[in-house]
Amino acid sequence: MHGLEPPPLATTEEPSSSRAPENERKVSESLIVDPSPTVSQAIATRRSIRQFLGRPVEESVVREILERASRAASGGNLQPWKVSVLAGEVRDEFVRTVAERMKETPFGEGPEYEIYPRDLENPYRTRRGKVAGDMYALVGIERDDHAARAKQMALNFSFFGAPVGMFISIDRKMGPPQFADLGIFLQNIMLLARERGLHTCPQEAWALWGKSIREFTGIPEEDLMFCGVALGYADPDAAVNQLYSDRAPLEEFATFRGF
Amino acid sequence: MHGLEPPPLATTEEPSSSRAPENERKVSESLIVDPSPTVSQAIATRRSIRQFLGRPVEESVVREILERASRAASGGNLQPWKVSVLAGEVRDEFVRTVAERMKETPFGEGPEYEIYPRDLENPYRTRRGKVAGDMYALVGIERDDHAARAKQMALNFSFFGAPVGMFISIDRKMGPPQFADLGIFLQNIMLLARERGLHTCPQEAWALWGKSIREFTGIPEEDLMFCGVALGYADPDAAVNQLYSDRAPLEEFATFRGF
Repeated sequence: MHGLEPPPLATTEEPSSSRAPENERKVSESLIVDPSPTVSQAIATRRSIRQFLGRPVEESVVREILERASRAASGGNLQPWKVSVLAGEVRDEFVRTVAERMKETPFGEGPEYEIYPRDLENPYRTRRGKVAGDMYALVGIERDDHAARAKQMALNFSFFGAPVGMFISIDRKMGPPQFADLGIFLQNIMLLARERGLHTCPQEAWALWGKSIREFTGIPEEDLMFCGVALGYADPDAAVNQLYSDRAPLEEFATFRGF
Repeated sequence: MHGLEPPPLATTEEPSSSRAPENERKVSESLIVDPSPTVSQAIATRRSIRQFLGRPVEESVVREILERASRAASGGNLQPWKVSVLAGEVRDEFVRTVAERMKETPFGEGPEYEIYPRDLENPYRTRRGKVAGDMYALVGIERDDHAARAKQMALNFSFFGAPVGMFISIDRKMGPPQFADLGIFLQNIMLLARERGLHTCPQEAWALWGKSIREFTGIPEEDLMFCGVALGYADPDAAVNQLYSDRAPLEEFATFRGF
């Protein structure tokens, strides 16, 4: 694992301990729970949280995060992002409805778009397999236990227990460059959350449930539902939250000339 | 204009003064020059800088920014970003070469991709026109002065004087979701720059010069050159750097249910 400053969990644990959930709980809670005010801290402590506490997040906080996030750059200042936020009773009813429908159509309602390229090649294929393997190992699920893996996957559709669920959508006429704009906006949301001691999980998995999402949010047919974002307070005791995914070393993705 | 905290230039000037470059120079330099350590400050003070000082940026700083930026989230941890950095003599020779070629092919070598959707509709069309109009007004270029506008546009291809130019590329097999990953990575770069008192300009305009960029950076044909990023210290006296582009109010892009 590659950790920079502040070295999150990566440097406080041996790789072997990532297979021993009991040990994980000894890691300092502060690394997950404390706010990360600086840019470097927020980037380094952001991780996909897959178990949230029930503690609610106030509407004013969500509004402030989204308003600030909209300072995101976008080509030609198009600002192509749209956000639908669900909380409280509406969020709960939505999650219950999807859980009910999952009994009929466990794989959703037909994906909004292709999440990964077909026939993913290396190094991407290996990276994807590694992070999934690391996650299932942390929660003690065996590689071949498809039922348990499906159950873990299904936790996506409760926002992993987060009290606030957001959906990011975009006009279907927009192209790949405008998806980059969405990413810029999305990272602002995730870092502003860290600044406030909150955590997130960006969830492309929600692309499987476009129809139900439209029903509860009013996202129109002409917009594509890109991803969900779970927002709340991380459960510091959850083994799954210890996942701090690998990164390729600098030399693998960058070249430098003329210095 | 919508400014949150810290209120950048937007709240220290009247809209009318945005047409009077002389007055702009009285605005506190600190808002452009000082580092912005917190997430909120970095997001609020980031803007596209279109005139940089000659002051160089050390290789170690660029490496640190890119290494930290690679903590960006990506779906399935694919980490699809690739970066080619040019500085010093190599950067200078590259800029000279493109300037020379611009005499033959002023509109570049054929775009790498479609930067905007064809027949852009509202509100996007209006937003795009507004930010361009605001920029040309700041530098005193009339709407119909096509020669002057082309000259201003061409400054892109000197990285607006920045000492470091980066190019972000991606495997052509990747789809829109991986462009969102690029955006997340790109925003990390821009915010980490602000944390260090540096500024950036993300430049999709470089998509017009893919062939020359490949020649100088070694980006292979199978990768798409997505954008350039100029990196350096902003010139606080430059009128063009006063541009703080509009944002739609929260109500235009977000809905809230269940709070």
